[in-house]
Amino acid sequence: MASWIPVSPESDFSLANLPYGVFSTEVSGPRIGVAIGDHVLDLKVLAQDQIFSDIEFDFTTLEASNLNAYAALGIHVHRDVRKRLQLLLGKDTQLGDLLRDNQERRGRALVPLSSVSMHLPMSIGDYTDFFVGVDHAVNMANILAPNVPLKAICPNFYHLPIAYHGRASSVVVSGTSFRRPKGQIPVDGEPSSDSCQKLDYEVELAAFIGRGNEMGDEIDVDRAEDHIFGFVLMNDWSARDVQFWESAPLGPFNGKNFCTTISPWIVPLEALEPFRTVPKAPGREVLPYLSQEKTVSAYDIPIQVSLEAKLRSWFGNIPRGRVQQQECGLVFCTDDRTPHPRWMPPPIWRSACDGHAFRTTRGELGCFMESTLGGTTPYDMESNGPSKKKLSRRYVEDGDTITFTAQARGRDGLGQVGFGVCKGEVLPVAVAPGV
Amino acid sequence: MASWIPVSPESDFSLANLPYGVFSTEVSGPRIGVAIGDHVLDLKVLAQDQIFSDIEFDFTTLEASNLNAYAALGIHVHRDVRKRLQLLLGKDTQLGDLLRDNQERRGRALVPLSSVSMHLPMSIGDYTDFFVGVDHAVNMANILAPNVPLKAICPNFYHLPIAYHGRASSVVVSGTSFRRPKGQIPVDGEPSSDSCQKLDYEVELAAFIGRGNEMGDEIDVDRAEDHIFGFVLMNDWSARDVQFWESAPLGPFNGKNFCTTISPWIVPLEALEPFRTVPKAPGREVLPYLSQEKTVSAYDIPIQVSLEAKLRSWFGNIPRGRVQQQECGLVFCTDDRTPHPRWMPPPIWRSACDGHAFRTTRGELGCFMESTLGGTTPYDMESNGPSKKKLSRRYVEDGDTITFTAQARGRDGLGQVGFGVCKGEVLPVAVAPGV
Repeated sequence: MASWIPVSPESDFSLANLPYGVFSTEVSGPRIGVAIGDHVLDLKVLAQDQIFSDIEFDFTTLEASNLNAYAALGIHVHRDVRKRLQLLLGKDTQLGDLLRDNQERRGRALVPLSSVSMHLPMSIGDYTDFFVGVDHAVNMANILAPNVPLKAICPNFYHLPIAYHGRASSVVVSGTSFRRPKGQIPVDGEPSSDSCQKLDYEVELAAFIGRGNEMGDEIDVDRAEDHIFGFVLMNDWSARDVQFWESAPLGPFNGKNFCTTISPWIVPLEALEPFRTVPKAPGREVLPYLSQEKTVSAYDIPIQVSLEAKLRSWFGNIPRGRVQQQECGLVFCTDDRTPHPRWMPPPIWRSACDGHAFRTTRGELGCFMESTLGGTTPYDMESNGPSKKKLSRRYVEDGDTITFTAQARGRDGLGQVGFGVCKGEVLPVAVAPGV
Repeated sequence: MASWIPVSPESDFSLANLPYGVFSTEVSGPRIGVAIGDHVLDLKVLAQDQIFSDIEFDFTTLEASNLNAYAALGIHVHRDVRKRLQLLLGKDTQLGDLLRDNQERRGRALVPLSSVSMHLPMSIGDYTDFFVGVDHAVNMANILAPNVPLKAICPNFYHLPIAYHGRASSVVVSGTSFRRPKGQIPVDGEPSSDSCQKLDYEVELAAFIGRGNEMGDEIDVDRAEDHIFGFVLMNDWSARDVQFWESAPLGPFNGKNFCTTISPWIVPLEALEPFRTVPKAPGREVLPYLSQEKTVSAYDIPIQVSLEAKLRSWFGNIPRGRVQQQECGLVFCTDDRTPHPRWMPPPIWRSACDGHAFRTTRGELGCFMESTLGGTTPYDMESNGPSKKKLSRRYVEDGDTITFTAQARGRDGLGQVGFGVCKGEVLPVAVAPGV
């Protein structure tokens, strides 16, 4: 499965992937494209040039400035368009005259990734965060209630995918920096108003729901995947001190809703199909409507987390409107030794309506709260560069950039299916307005 | 403050109110209007006829099919437009030639309320439900943990307006019926999949936020009201059995997100200003950023709740697409003996971003869960009609219609400022598709 467009083996965007995104250039506003190697293929150009005119769908949906209308068309259209794109871009294509050998159209349709800005791929109506990682749940319960470890997991956890609604309007695309939040933080039960002292990242995989359902209509668990458009990486930034003060009895709110970062490329469900696997440990029995069968199906998608620190403080003399760049010490902590982050799509989709997110990591690496045992033990990291610089963190500090990357794996010979980059930098709470 | 348009003393929509809504007729699509007596004044007609052309704002916002763009203009524009409308509609208007005496324009601009359908007034990006009623909190805590009544209220309750994000996509306008939800319901800690057995209403007042803020920008509590466009009544329908099984540790989710009903007319902040009062009991001390001063300001808005039952079951032989009408027994339970539902706007707005809701009732009447002590004691109601029919409920039954109405009060001589109607009917879970 090779393309006539050069795709390096390390690229996330092989012909086996073809993720959808919304990009703009210096000369054109937001439009829909798919990533291939180091390029974006402009689907607005192809749609306007009637490249899809023999496929039965409203191809003006590809001329929009977000993917909502196209994603709502359903999985059958997405499969047909994907096949057409793979034919157009494949090395041995018989449709060479449509793109490969049409220099004028290639010039209009292929845009170097280096020259584009990425946007939120869809307008997000609602977003829901599910709590599905049993290791994450056990770890957090141990940290929060060390003397009653297993009892501290609420009994509902094993019976249904529990969840809360997040704030849709603070979901941002990778590369958007944000300010450290403020909030109420208790000391010995008495709250004060302060900046968050326990800012954390949280590794998640998020799904975009394409086709909705009428309010009150059920979606059978066996048809649930038909509603999924695709997946992105997500950093569910968390203010742990704010979160655990406010959460009882109504759950996470200001501790979570100040910023949520997603990667810009939506990896389609079909691209992940070859990577379907059986989770390391089977789930407990669930009620029939959630389908026991579906709980033993998972994808193998390890997510790497990196932290890039500004080792010198940049609080002083920041030129207005621009943050002083003093990066050094690229520091990695990676979870690629945890081969089976478990999650169970269909039982979750059943509750689905709009956008969704899933905690995917296991063990100690889903967030600092886990790896530092609630901030009590610093987590030591080492640069992957030649300097082998060391860095230590209890929580995320100002000037830190957290980056997630991920590649599906399990099939040799198939091109790489990766998610691109999900990153965000934490700005200090006190920067001047407008910076 | 009288209008040349007849407004009965019982009408919610006096010249002192002028609430905004979005309506359609058989011949015209959704458009913006204000209610006055038994009529809607079509603001699209007035805007297109240049009635607002000397007020400095983009009056094409009044030609839209929802109020979002107009609401975002800010309170200064809303005040100017409101003044203009009161001048146009006032009995002693000096602008008589613009509307009162212009029969052709009156014919186009004044539409009988009886001939319109109402729509959601704004496109709702996010919605947040705050838990602010101390009586409701104490009652619920007593029901859920009767042996530790006051300790059962989480300590954060007294320090900040705790809240959860609701599902924006299931907020519906008054008159929309909905099906009884299904969910996981535990019996002795073991869940089963069933239809909700403890369906409840919940009385709330909801605010629409007009002008937003940039992500990360703070809104000072003293400027918070500038962001409020106005208020509606809201029924935060609740599946109590689903809710209390799922809620720990992440809060309400499926127990709340199946349907939320709002009244269609947004009562502007300015219309409620004359009804500002001091709450019966002052709040506890709060942190300075929440402004102690603001916690002793409230509105006096008693909300009436009525239940209209179908006394004969209508499960059999329902003509497809139409529900058999067999209403009888209009049954009232009213909370108009509770003069001071307390809530504290500004400390709440501070967390504000999009749409918001507030529990407003006190005592036993905010929901059946309170009035029936968790469903253990039936609540007896009596018809307000001559038949004095009696009806008893533990929770809401299929075929029940719950209606909220409310009038601000406290000022004699001023026209009535009411909220119209917020009502919804519960359909059984098993109706055929398409009904």
